[in-house]
Amino acid sequence: MPLSPADDRFAKALGQKLPEGTLFEAEPRYLEEPRGQWHGIARWVARPRTTQEVAEIVRSCTEARVGLVPYSGGTGLVGGQVAPAPYIPLLISLERMAKIRSVHAEEFSIVAEAGAILADVQAAAADVGRLFPLSLASEGSARIGGLLSTNAGGLNVLRYGNARDLCLGIEAVLPDGQIMNGLKRLRKDNTGYDLRHLMIGAEGTLGVITAAVLKLAPQPARAGTAMMVVRSPNDALRLLSIARELVGDGINAFELIGGTGFRFLSEVLPEVRLPFADIPDWSVLIDLGMMSAQDPAEALEQIFAAALEMGLVKDGVIAQTQAQANEFWTVRERIPDANRMIGAISSHDISVPLGAIDEFIAKGRDMIRAMGPFRLNCFGHLGDGNLHFNVFPEKGGNRKTYADQRELIKRAVHDLVQTFDGSFSAEHGVGRLKVADLERYGDPAKLSAMRAIKTALDPAGIMNPGAVLRTAM
Amino acid sequence: MPLSPADDRFAKALGQKLPEGTLFEAEPRYLEEPRGQWHGIARWVARPRTTQEVAEIVRSCTEARVGLVPYSGGTGLVGGQVAPAPYIPLLISLERMAKIRSVHAEEFSIVAEAGAILADVQAAAADVGRLFPLSLASEGSARIGGLLSTNAGGLNVLRYGNARDLCLGIEAVLPDGQIMNGLKRLRKDNTGYDLRHLMIGAEGTLGVITAAVLKLAPQPARAGTAMMVVRSPNDALRLLSIARELVGDGINAFELIGGTGFRFLSEVLPEVRLPFADIPDWSVLIDLGMMSAQDPAEALEQIFAAALEMGLVKDGVIAQTQAQANEFWTVRERIPDANRMIGAISSHDISVPLGAIDEFIAKGRDMIRAMGPFRLNCFGHLGDGNLHFNVFPEKGGNRKTYADQRELIKRAVHDLVQTFDGSFSAEHGVGRLKVADLERYGDPAKLSAMRAIKTALDPAGIMNPGAVLRTAM
Repeated sequence: MPLSPADDRFAKALGQKLPEGTLFEAEPRYLEEPRGQWHGIARWVARPRTTQEVAEIVRSCTEARVGLVPYSGGTGLVGGQVAPAPYIPLLISLERMAKIRSVHAEEFSIVAEAGAILADVQAAAADVGRLFPLSLASEGSARIGGLLSTNAGGLNVLRYGNARDLCLGIEAVLPDGQIMNGLKRLRKDNTGYDLRHLMIGAEGTLGVITAAVLKLAPQPARAGTAMMVVRSPNDALRLLSIARELVGDGINAFELIGGTGFRFLSEVLPEVRLPFADIPDWSVLIDLGMMSAQDPAEALEQIFAAALEMGLVKDGVIAQTQAQANEFWTVRERIPDANRMIGAISSHDISVPLGAIDEFIAKGRDMIRAMGPFRLNCFGHLGDGNLHFNVFPEKGGNRKTYADQRELIKRAVHDLVQTFDGSFSAEHGVGRLKVADLERYGDPAKLSAMRAIKTALDPAGIMNPGAVLRTAM
Repeated sequence: MPLSPADDRFAKALGQKLPEGTLFEAEPRYLEEPRGQWHGIARWVARPRTTQEVAEIVRSCTEARVGLVPYSGGTGLVGGQVAPAPYIPLLISLERMAKIRSVHAEEFSIVAEAGAILADVQAAAADVGRLFPLSLASEGSARIGGLLSTNAGGLNVLRYGNARDLCLGIEAVLPDGQIMNGLKRLRKDNTGYDLRHLMIGAEGTLGVITAAVLKLAPQPARAGTAMMVVRSPNDALRLLSIARELVGDGINAFELIGGTGFRFLSEVLPEVRLPFADIPDWSVLIDLGMMSAQDPAEALEQIFAAALEMGLVKDGVIAQTQAQANEFWTVRERIPDANRMIGAISSHDISVPLGAIDEFIAKGRDMIRAMGPFRLNCFGHLGDGNLHFNVFPEKGGNRKTYADQRELIKRAVHDLVQTFDGSFSAEHGVGRLKVADLERYGDPAKLSAMRAIKTALDPAGIMNPGAVLRTAM
């Protein structure tokens, strides 16, 4: 049975069940997404103030069979937050539910509403001497509900895990309007199916997360940053292995940078200072965060010395000042800017088993070379096996020239990833962009179980229709 | 519709679909569980050699509507592995699927079949200089499938998490007989619902886990162990907080020991040497595992000095030798033995938010005192908020005297836990023992979603019938 549109009639009826000033005409900001691929046509957005209001909205949508698209910070890169024509859904934004409900420094936990902005959660943790380790480029606008719904990754996954690993419990409204109160500040709770982990990463297709208990970490007292030149991604992996043996969990980030990244910076962002006189084919950025009883600079020297002895590194610089550490990070963080300026033909957010990275990169590079005069910028979170494997036109070329090859390239890369038992979406999720990829590459048994669960929890198919799974609209 | 029994006729028909020597008459060892509360009456056990055989067995059970009970290491404490009369299920044991399929030292991962024994996985990891951190009393017989299905906890949860946190991917047979291949060695994979986490902790009610990719950790090079006397559980929590600030993730275990534990040891196990001349009301065992670049003894001294300055500790001993460290651990590990010898009236595996531990213990103690001449032994994994809160008869008394109060005590303790938003089963699971507790204390929306998922994935209700959720048999 198709869904009904969230038209003015529905909005009027819903408005009568809610406090005045809850429903608004959808402003343009709710109808765009960062990559500009989707444009929403929703007419109405609900901005509830309480979980009870969220429940009323969800229940009303189910009763009227009206699709509901949760809009969080709007920073998602796969179109999960924007439903295009022809179907007109209701939008729901939890931006008014942005409170930090409580902070528990000695418990290392914090309770936040789903609308809370990541940077605000980080700040609330820092205020009591704790770290909320989730960190990503959009942290100034991304909100907790969306970060959990997409199981966001970011810079510190190697050490602290993805968003799901940082969540102890959630409160959520299920598609039938029931409020699931799983807002428990418990480290251990083996009482039935783990619905928290089912809702996390479901991209709003199984309900609306309204609040969460998040894990905090001790604030590392001393930081250390270095860049080291390696011969190959595989040597980078061995370097990481040595680093882990020496400093264990102290490694915040371990980022692989390919030579193309440096060359792109020289080309379009020459103000970014590069750490090495000659551009190395492969280098890594290592970031340590250690406790007061430990010395990160000494640890980095030990790591470098051990790796040198094994012939794994050719050169290296250990930051002597915070300014220098920032410089190293600037290199890493501005590569995506350089990418945007040059203009990728096709970008891929993929992961493969760590041990397969070398072979994947070699095969992928040869494959891309055979397809045309392309440049490959391969960089990413090596410790997570998560590579941004992005294909660009030749120097001076224009991505538009190759527009008709885009789908071919994407398909070839994802097919290659599949042969390594990898993932076509390591951190961005499925959203609307990768529904067909999920159908193509997803395990059939997993897909059939996903569909059964979706139908069981959301029989009318109202929750974020068209995202993740194809549903009737 | 009720289930059909796994009788000789069914066994004969199933046997014809499987290689010879797959079905056996169920020996007594499959029909008992450690606490002796349940006795199974199954007649047949399947011992498949491959995932395909598991799939055939599950499919046949669904077709014939025959209940299937997965039996793993048999060490579970809530009866999840033993179905009592009157219903006669088929048992399935994966003991012949006990291989370590592959070890990936530089990836920090290992692939094991579900029948692999925990100690064998630990040993395979150690062989390549890695640590598989899951560790518990029954590690010599517990198997990976059961450990994941119950989301086992154990000694190192504080640092490394529960079983679910140590699992990167699973292969499982779903109730319809489909094989879900999620055996990916990926750190990041955001492609649809996380069914791994749904199967983990489902106690065999949603399918049979057949293999898993497990996470390894660097092997800590240097250990440090200390016992410290604190004034209260709350001061113990503050001590943990200081320890975390000083050594971060280096804390393997942080165990709270109440005075009763020491007194029980003196009473029934006088050969166990106690670390303090006077029995302290509250003490903690701290265990550090650090990398080669770090000094645990120095860290323990720093922790002690900082805590002394804040008035949090009254006394302390830092182990100077491995023998002394073992002695400290012996104290902790033999308390459960002493408990068994004395004989608990009622034992509780509960968790509360860390910040509520002090108040919970105080209220619980007063409550138990008001109920009779009982002794309370409260100890456990403080860092996880997981307490074993066990009630014993007065000195010289007998648990049988109070048999009729057992349910009252359990109810009172669990009711109290509920007022703190705690869990009535922190690590043991629901099994058959706590089905009524789940119904009483579980969040109604969560329960209704659990039932919807169970029905969607296992419409015939064949998987581990009677465990976790009440189903028709």
